[in-house]
Amino acid sequence: MEKLTPVEVTNLLLGFAVMLALARAFGEAFNRFRQPAIVGEILAGILLGPTVLGSLAPGLFQGLFPTAGALALAYHTVITLAVVLLLLIAGLEIDLSVLWRQGRAALLVSVLGTAVPFAVGFGAAYAFPRFWGFEPGADLLTFALFFGTALSISALPVIAKIMMDMNLFKTDVGMLVMGAAMFSDLVGWIIFSIILGMMNAHAPTDAELGGDHGGMGIGATIGLTLLLVAFTLTVGRWLVHRAMPWIQSRLSWPGGVLSFTLVLTLAGAAATEAIGIHAIFGAFLVGIAVGDSTHMRAQTRMVLHQFVTYVFAPIFFVSIGLEADFLQHFNLPLVLGVLAVAFVGKLAGCLLGARWGGLSRNDSWAISFGMNARGAMEIILGLLALQYGVIQEDMFVALVVLALLSSIVSGPLMNKFIDRPQTWKLEELLHARLFIPEMEAATREEAIRELARPAAEAAGLDAEMVAQAVLAREQIMGTSLGQEIAVPHARLEEVDKPVLVVGHSRQGIDFDSPDGKPTRLIFLLLTPQQDMSAQIQIMGQIARLFKEEQARAVIYENDSVELVRAFVKTEAAPLLAH
Amino acid sequence: MEKLTPVEVTNLLLGFAVMLALARAFGEAFNRFRQPAIVGEILAGILLGPTVLGSLAPGLFQGLFPTAGALALAYHTVITLAVVLLLLIAGLEIDLSVLWRQGRAALLVSVLGTAVPFAVGFGAAYAFPRFWGFEPGADLLTFALFFGTALSISALPVIAKIMMDMNLFKTDVGMLVMGAAMFSDLVGWIIFSIILGMMNAHAPTDAELGGDHGGMGIGATIGLTLLLVAFTLTVGRWLVHRAMPWIQSRLSWPGGVLSFTLVLTLAGAAATEAIGIHAIFGAFLVGIAVGDSTHMRAQTRMVLHQFVTYVFAPIFFVSIGLEADFLQHFNLPLVLGVLAVAFVGKLAGCLLGARWGGLSRNDSWAISFGMNARGAMEIILGLLALQYGVIQEDMFVALVVLALLSSIVSGPLMNKFIDRPQTWKLEELLHARLFIPEMEAATREEAIRELARPAAEAAGLDAEMVAQAVLAREQIMGTSLGQEIAVPHARLEEVDKPVLVVGHSRQGIDFDSPDGKPTRLIFLLLTPQQDMSAQIQIMGQIARLFKEEQARAVIYENDSVELVRAFVKTEAAPLLAH
Repeated sequence: MEKLTPVEVTNLLLGFAVMLALARAFGEAFNRFRQPAIVGEILAGILLGPTVLGSLAPGLFQGLFPTAGALALAYHTVITLAVVLLLLIAGLEIDLSVLWRQGRAALLVSVLGTAVPFAVGFGAAYAFPRFWGFEPGADLLTFALFFGTALSISALPVIAKIMMDMNLFKTDVGMLVMGAAMFSDLVGWIIFSIILGMMNAHAPTDAELGGDHGGMGIGATIGLTLLLVAFTLTVGRWLVHRAMPWIQSRLSWPGGVLSFTLVLTLAGAAATEAIGIHAIFGAFLVGIAVGDSTHMRAQTRMVLHQFVTYVFAPIFFVSIGLEADFLQHFNLPLVLGVLAVAFVGKLAGCLLGARWGGLSRNDSWAISFGMNARGAMEIILGLLALQYGVIQEDMFVALVVLALLSSIVSGPLMNKFIDRPQTWKLEELLHARLFIPEMEAATREEAIRELARPAAEAAGLDAEMVAQAVLAREQIMGTSLGQEIAVPHARLEEVDKPVLVVGHSRQGIDFDSPDGKPTRLIFLLLTPQQDMSAQIQIMGQIARLFKEEQARAVIYENDSVELVRAFVKTEAAPLLAH
Repeated sequence: MEKLTPVEVTNLLLGFAVMLALARAFGEAFNRFRQPAIVGEILAGILLGPTVLGSLAPGLFQGLFPTAGALALAYHTVITLAVVLLLLIAGLEIDLSVLWRQGRAALLVSVLGTAVPFAVGFGAAYAFPRFWGFEPGADLLTFALFFGTALSISALPVIAKIMMDMNLFKTDVGMLVMGAAMFSDLVGWIIFSIILGMMNAHAPTDAELGGDHGGMGIGATIGLTLLLVAFTLTVGRWLVHRAMPWIQSRLSWPGGVLSFTLVLTLAGAAATEAIGIHAIFGAFLVGIAVGDSTHMRAQTRMVLHQFVTYVFAPIFFVSIGLEADFLQHFNLPLVLGVLAVAFVGKLAGCLLGARWGGLSRNDSWAISFGMNARGAMEIILGLLALQYGVIQEDMFVALVVLALLSSIVSGPLMNKFIDRPQTWKLEELLHARLFIPEMEAATREEAIRELARPAAEAAGLDAEMVAQAVLAREQIMGTSLGQEIAVPHARLEEVDKPVLVVGHSRQGIDFDSPDGKPTRLIFLLLTPQQDMSAQIQIMGQIARLFKEEQARAVIYENDSVELVRAFVKTEAAPLLAH
C-alpha cells in the first residue's frame, strides 16, 4: 500500500494536535462568556490558516498544512470523515416528533422563517448578481438558489447550545425554536442537495474535481435525492426502529449499535456522494432515521455525541480557517450586504410567523433572534459552493463572518426579550477563599460566625451583620438536612449575586439534625433578596449531590477546592451536555 | 487544498462501511463462542484483502482498496490514526500500581515470561536465520532482536477480554496475569523502539520511506527513547495527575479532558515518530501516564474506550488482512516453527516463574496459557518490521497465524486448569418460548403450574414433577421479593443448566409479599442441584435489576422478549465492558 512517509506522519499528528489544542483553548475562552465554542474554534482556524500563520510564518504553515501532496490529501480524508460524523450528530438531534407536536405558531415560524429569508436571498442575488460577487458566465439560477438557501438554513447545534445555556431548552419557547430550526435545516438540506445536482450539471470545474458521476443527469440526481429522502424517513426509519432491539439484545453492547449506526452512516454518505450530491447529506438522513428510534439508548447517543463534538467537530471547524485568507478576501461592502439581507430576511420571516401565530411581542423577538443563529450548516454549504465554483472566496468569507456574528449576538439579544431567572451552577460558586477545609468552631453559632467572615469579605459587607442575618434565619428553623450536612442561609438586600462558603468540621458540630448525627459539612449561602430562585436552585443542588456519601468524602479528604470543583462539575453534568 | 475526488470519497466511505460491517459480523460470530472479537476482525480482513476478495474479484478489490494513489494514502491516514488511538487505549489499561502490588510470584512470571521467550526467539533466529526467512545481507542482530521481542510480547486487550469472559478479572490469578502481561508489554515496547532505531540506521529502504530523521544516529534515537520513557512515566505522569483536576474543574466537561488526552497523545506520537521510532510508542506512553491518574473519571475512559474499541480498532484489525496474501505467503514449515518456538518459549518461561513463585501446578498452567495469548501488539510489531524490510511476507503471515491461534486456544486451555463457577447472564436465559406476557393464573399455585409447563418442556422434564419441586420449596418460605416480584425456584438433579421462565400477571397474584402488594412479575427458576452459585447469581441479577420500577415497566409494556432482552443487556452491562 502507498503510505505516508514518517515525516508526513509526524507533521500530520502534529497538525491535528495543534488544531485540537487551539480549538479547545479558543472554544473555552468563548464558553467563559457564555458564547458557543464553535465561534472560538473557527477563530482558531483563521489563526492557523493563511490569514495569520500563513502570512507570519509561511514556511511553518506550508510544512504543517500544505495545500498539495500526500499530506493535504491526508487532512482532507480526516476532515471529510469529521464532517460526515458531524452531520450524523446533527441528524441525531432532529426529533421528527417534536416537529409534529408543535402547534400552529411553530408551523408558521418554521415555514415563514425559512421561506422569507430564502426569498430575500434569492431575490437579492437575482436582482444584483454582480454586487454579490457572481461571476458572469456561471449559472445565475444556481447562484441565486444557493444564496437563498444559505440565508434560510439554521444551525441546530448552535441553537441547541444557546437554549441550554439560557435554561430555555425544555420551555415552550425553546421547543418552538428547536422545532422550527429542525424544519429549516431539513428543508434547507433538501433544497441544497438539489442545487448540488445542478452544480454538477453546470460546474465548469467538473473535470478538475475528477468526477463525472457516471454521467448522471440533473433530473436523475434530483429524482434519486427525493426518493432517498422519502425512503429513509419512512421505510428506513421503520426498519432501523425494528432492528434496534434485535441488535441490542443479540450483539455485543454497545459495539453492536455503534457499528450499526456508523455502517449505515458511511453507506448513506457513500450513496449520496455517488448520486452526485454530497456525502454529508446521506449522513444527515441516516442520523435522523437512527436518532428517531426510541430504542436508541442515551448512553450510545452520549458516546457518539461526545467523541464527535469534542474531537471531530473541532477539527472540522478549525479546517474552515485553512480554506481561505480571511483578510485578503474580506470585502466590507459584501460582508455588510450579506449581514443585512441575512438578518433582515430571517428576523422578518420569524417575527411575521410568531406574531401571526399569536405570540407576544417579546417572545416573538426572542424566537427570531434564536432562529437567526447560524453556524456549521451554513458554512458547510458555503464550503461546498466554493469547492464547486458557485461562489468565490469573498462570498465564503462573508458567510463565515455571518455565522460568527449571528451566533455571537443571538444569546445576548434573546436575553433582552425574555425574562428567565439566571441559572446558578454550584461549581461556579466554589472558590479557594470560600472553602475552609478545617473549621475551628465547636458550636452552631461559632460555625456560622466562622463561615460568615469570608462570605462577608467576598460580598463587601460587615461580618457581624451577615452572621446576625444567618443566625436569625437559623432560629426560625434549623437548616440541617441530615446526613452530616447543614445549609445555614439568608437572603440579603445587600448582595447582588449568590455567595457560598463551604466548611468542613472534622469533629462535627451539633446542628440539631433530624437524624441526630453531628454535622460535618456546612454550606453558608447568601443570596440576593429579590432573586427567589437562586436560593432554591443552589440548595437543591447541594442536597442532591451531597446526600451521597461518596460526594461528602471528596470534601472530607481534600484540602484543595480544585478537586471539589472537579467532582461537582463532572458529577452534576447532565448526560448529554453540549 | 488538494482533495479527494468524489469517486474516491465514495469508495473510501464504502470501503470503511464494508470493513466495519464485516468486522462486526465476524467479531460477533467469534464472541458467540466466547472467543475474542479480534480473531473475527482479522479474519474479516483476510476475506476483504488480496487473499480472498483480491483473487475472486480483483477489479472490485482494486476499486475499493487500491494499493497506490490518493485512496491508498487516505486509508493509510485513517489506519495510522486508528492504531495510534488503539495504543492510547492499551496504555490506559496499564495500571502501574497493579504491577507494584503483585508479589514475588507475579514478578517471577513477569520477568521469566518475558525473558525466556525472548531468549528462545533470539537464539533460534540467530542460530538458523535462513529457516525463519532471513534475507542475507540484512542485519542479523536486528532480525534476531525483533524475533525475540515478537515472541515475548503479550496482548493486554485480548488477555483482559479472556479474563473477563472467564470471570477471572478481579481474582488473584487474573490480576497476576494482567500484571505480568503489562510488564511484558512495557518491556517489549521499549526493546522494540530500540530495534526501530536500529532499523532506521540499517534499513536499505530508508530513502524509499522518504525519511531520514534529520540524520539522527542510532545512539541518539535510543538515548532519546529511554529519556522519553523515563520522563513520561515520572515527571510527565505527575504533571498529568496535577493538571487533571484543574482541567475538570475549569474547562468544559468532558470536552476538556478528552481534548487534553488526545492532544497529548497526538503530540507524544509525533514526538516518537520524529525521533525515529514509531508514532504508536508515544501514544502508548501517554496512555500509561494519563490512565494512571486516579483523577480520570470512569465516564471519560468509557467514551474513549468504546469509540476506539468499536470503531477504530476494527478498522485497524481488518486492515491487517489487506497487507498480504495469506494463502500465497502461507509457508507451513515456517508457521509450524513459529508456533512451536512461540508456545514453548512463553509457556516454559511462565511455568518456571509461576512454579518457582510457589503457585500450584494447575494455577501455573492456567497462568501460562493466559500469558500465551497474543494479538494486536505482536501484529503491530510484525507490520512495522514488514514495512521496514526486517521481515518478509511469509514471516508476517506466520506471526498473524500465531496471534490468531494463541488467542483462540488461550481461554479453553485456561478453563481446563482452573475451576471457576460458570457465570450466567440474565439476558442469555431469556427466550421467546420462556416468556408469558399475559398469565392466566389467579393463585400462587396456578401461577407456578403455569410457568412450570414451559420450563419443564425446555428442560425435557415432566411438568408435574417440576411444579411439585417448586411448590415444595415455596412452602418452606415464600419467594416474593416485594415490589411486585416473586422468584419461585428449585434446584434439580435433572437439569444441567439454568432454566428461567418469566411471567407477567396483569391482575396481580397474592404471593404473600412482605410489602403486601400483589405480585405481577414472576420468575420461575430451575438450576442444577450441584451448581450452588447459579441460583445465587441469577436471583441476584433479578433482584438488582427489577427493583427499579423502570425495569418492571419494560416487561409490563412489551409482549416481545427481544425488547426485554435488549433492556436487560444494556442496563446490566458494566461500564467498561470489553
